[in-house]
Amino acid sequence: MKKVAVIGSGSWGTALAVMLQKHGHDVIIWSRRQDAVNEMQKERENKRYLPGVTLPEGLEFTTDREAAVKDGEIIIFSVPSKAVRQTALDFAPYFTKEQVLVNVAKGLEEGSLMRLSKVIQECAPQCEVCILSGPSHAEEVARDIPTTCLIASENEEIAKMVQMEFMNPRFRLYTNTDVIGVEMGAALKNVMALAAGISDGLGFGDNTKAAIMTRGIAEMKRLGVEMGGKTETFAGLSGIGDLIVTCTSMHSRNRRAGILLGQGKSLEETLGEIKMVVEGVNTVQAAYTLAKEHNVEMPITNAIYDVLFQGKNAEQAVLELMSRGGKAE
Amino acid sequence: MKKVAVIGSGSWGTALAVMLQKHGHDVIIWSRRQDAVNEMQKERENKRYLPGVTLPEGLEFTTDREAAVKDGEIIIFSVPSKAVRQTALDFAPYFTKEQVLVNVAKGLEEGSLMRLSKVIQECAPQCEVCILSGPSHAEEVARDIPTTCLIASENEEIAKMVQMEFMNPRFRLYTNTDVIGVEMGAALKNVMALAAGISDGLGFGDNTKAAIMTRGIAEMKRLGVEMGGKTETFAGLSGIGDLIVTCTSMHSRNRRAGILLGQGKSLEETLGEIKMVVEGVNTVQAAYTLAKEHNVEMPITNAIYDVLFQGKNAEQAVLELMSRGGKAE
Repeated sequence: MKKVAVIGSGSWGTALAVMLQKHGHDVIIWSRRQDAVNEMQKERENKRYLPGVTLPEGLEFTTDREAAVKDGEIIIFSVPSKAVRQTALDFAPYFTKEQVLVNVAKGLEEGSLMRLSKVIQECAPQCEVCILSGPSHAEEVARDIPTTCLIASENEEIAKMVQMEFMNPRFRLYTNTDVIGVEMGAALKNVMALAAGISDGLGFGDNTKAAIMTRGIAEMKRLGVEMGGKTETFAGLSGIGDLIVTCTSMHSRNRRAGILLGQGKSLEETLGEIKMVVEGVNTVQAAYTLAKEHNVEMPITNAIYDVLFQGKNAEQAVLELMSRGGKAE
Repeated sequence: MKKVAVIGSGSWGTALAVMLQKHGHDVIIWSRRQDAVNEMQKERENKRYLPGVTLPEGLEFTTDREAAVKDGEIIIFSVPSKAVRQTALDFAPYFTKEQVLVNVAKGLEEGSLMRLSKVIQECAPQCEVCILSGPSHAEEVARDIPTTCLIASENEEIAKMVQMEFMNPRFRLYTNTDVIGVEMGAALKNVMALAAGISDGLGFGDNTKAAIMTRGIAEMKRLGVEMGGKTETFAGLSGIGDLIVTCTSMHSRNRRAGILLGQGKSLEETLGEIKMVVEGVNTVQAAYTLAKEHNVEMPITNAIYDVLFQGKNAEQAVLELMSRGGKAE
């Protein structure tokens, strides 16, 4: 049993808090919004981000940074990628070197294109930072649906500690030391979810989407390996596993955003309709730039970039992807 | 433009015939049933196996083996795995060495546990045998939904010839020389589709299914590589691509059979309800035996074997799979 602080009250942070509190930990959620804290305290529900799930007794809430983390042994970082640096800087004065930080945000920092665990590590160099990733819709984890994830750290002892603490019969964790591969898979899969959604929105079929996902994991791996990740990580839970769940489930906002784009909506209309952060949109820009920098061929990423930011027709983009030259697999 | 004969009038054979005839080839379907031939000729529809799809003008039908193949340059083999040997023996006297056989059946021969292309090659040693595989529901191919498959042969020239002939802007083919890997992936993915369906039938979630699929491709690869296939083939269209489409689509009979099993139906009731051949059921037995023979760890295959043939409770089997010991990915 550990004291756990969750920074951020979005779907995933709240779901992890619910699951950990139910399984015996002492959990507190930090939110920057007092109205969110009040609602969760009074109504025992996070209506905006995790509707329908009862927040268990004992789960606490605060907007006070110091109070949130001062007793925490494990700190979960669950904020949108664009808020990671500022949040880490705000909290850094309160972190101690005994605390383990677990990043669960998926994406790359705008501008710097850094992996998010590196951003956190830079802001809080006194702490160990590891990553939790894998095929895990928040809604299902909160309801104790059997789920399997990874906990990644270059320091295997730290990964094992978090694994032992967080694991329960309905939530399995495997350890992995390939931090780069895990984090790049987690970020890039949202690009493919947009592509899969666009194909669905255009009315194409399961065959089309499976082809996009298969070629998609190949280009994710090309970039990830070029940046220092391991090939086999992309064949695992944080690679193909997370890709599958994100591209095939209606829980995925990135896929839902793709569907709206495929149906002919503009990027602005789409984001207005989803109302939550669609990480994939920023990740498309980051991946597009990294692919150029590292000289890696990423046809799906390039096509989605053109659709999102260059006004390219979505149907034409998908059909061109399907009819590329490549002769041998 | 080639003269193409399709042996078998199931969903997949009929869909390929429709697609090839529409794209300029001269196609004839052989069926063993005169009533099926009569219906297709008169109604221009294969009501039992491909309802709702109009059979294009020019597509021909016969029950006469010699007439079916005597002018064929490419012969597509599309019969259930358990009929492959007898069908190949029946046709072998009419095959010439100039003819290329394309096997599209997916499975392993009962008893011998041989790959189906080897069975065909054994019966018709005078011909080249290659394999068409990949994420391709028949219903979608017949409707020209963008689809991507592989054509595999150890003889790359033959694979390229079939690729050039069969390819069109909505049906892309990649070549692959790893016949073993392609054929083992095609067969074993139906075992995982049963597992995925069982999980769905039990009411588990997208997280659970993605975990099963991810661990599933890992065990498919272990056996496939042990038998001589290449690792990278399992990361491609005939591996993870076909697995995705089979585990996530309602078009898949193997997944539908799994759903019924997960809902508590017996194997007999399930097969009675599906009414078409569920290849995965035989493949489970074959894979179970091969795994033992080759000393390969296949926990999902073993669990499904126990559910299908040993009366094991399905929920217990899935929960046990999710809580296995494995600590590092």
